[in-house]
Amino acid sequence: MHEQFLQLAVGLANNSVNTGEGGPYGAVITKDGEIIAACTNKVTRRLDPTAHAEVMAIREACRKLNDFQLQACTLYTSCEPCPMCLGAIYWARLERVYFACSRQDAAAAGFDDSFIYDEIPLAPAERSIPMLRLNLDDACKPFELWHDKADKIPY
Amino acid sequence: MHEQFLQLAVGLANNSVNTGEGGPYGAVITKDGEIIAACTNKVTRRLDPTAHAEVMAIREACRKLNDFQLQACTLYTSCEPCPMCLGAIYWARLERVYFACSRQDAAAAGFDDSFIYDEIPLAPAERSIPMLRLNLDDACKPFELWHDKADKIPY
Repeated sequence: MHEQFLQLAVGLANNSVNTGEGGPYGAVITKDGEIIAACTNKVTRRLDPTAHAEVMAIREACRKLNDFQLQACTLYTSCEPCPMCLGAIYWARLERVYFACSRQDAAAAGFDDSFIYDEIPLAPAERSIPMLRLNLDDACKPFELWHDKADKIPY
Repeated sequence: MHEQFLQLAVGLANNSVNTGEGGPYGAVITKDGEIIAACTNKVTRRLDPTAHAEVMAIREACRKLNDFQLQACTLYTSCEPCPMCLGAIYWARLERVYFACSRQDAAAAGFDDSFIYDEIPLAPAERSIPMLRLNLDDACKPFELWHDKADKIPY
């Protein structure tokens, strides 16, 4: 069953290239063995660099389930998730992920997945996109307000 | 100038909590010293676990510039980007990032940023959300099609 859903994700990726819809990636999300989202990469079509197949599928599945989390759902993706999609998978609280190609395969095809993984352990200021912390007096005020808020929706 | 834009991002984060719009995060993107996006976290409001302030700002800035990349743009964010947002920053090819709070501050406030960073170096199958590679015969076919496609839009 898992191979079948993963094969579908790879088929979506092939179709994405053949139709010119976007990059060579596809993703499927299932719940209780039923497909609830099947998406492809839409970065160039939607002018949205976050529109990777996995992110598209997470957004679509959340719309379907009317929830901002996807507990008990499984993601099948044609390629090992990049760091952005990996983060999205944790925030969505998916149960499990199956993938076909590796980040090295993606790198060989000209994509930055492996490069971004290599940037993560670097000190933020030393990354190729420098990430610099500035000291503001009230930097943590948003978290204090959040802590004190009685009617917040945790996520 | 950088402190001013960062202060604005923190102010957006405060406002997000006070109005109940979403989580305690704000982000601003500038180009040539002009603000082109100013967004807050919308995870619970939009039922989209990827709707972090930085992702919202990247998508908004891309719409404004009618592009899927943000070269020569700077991101100011109330908190160090989580791995998802870090990935999005690389895919958007932003020039530089300034942040106020750290991932440890986010963790202390109950958010998973630091936890997700700790998961990344683990072997995919050993993560708390297991990520399992299955061997499919034609796993890399999408990348082959992409390689051979004459009229593709690289991104």
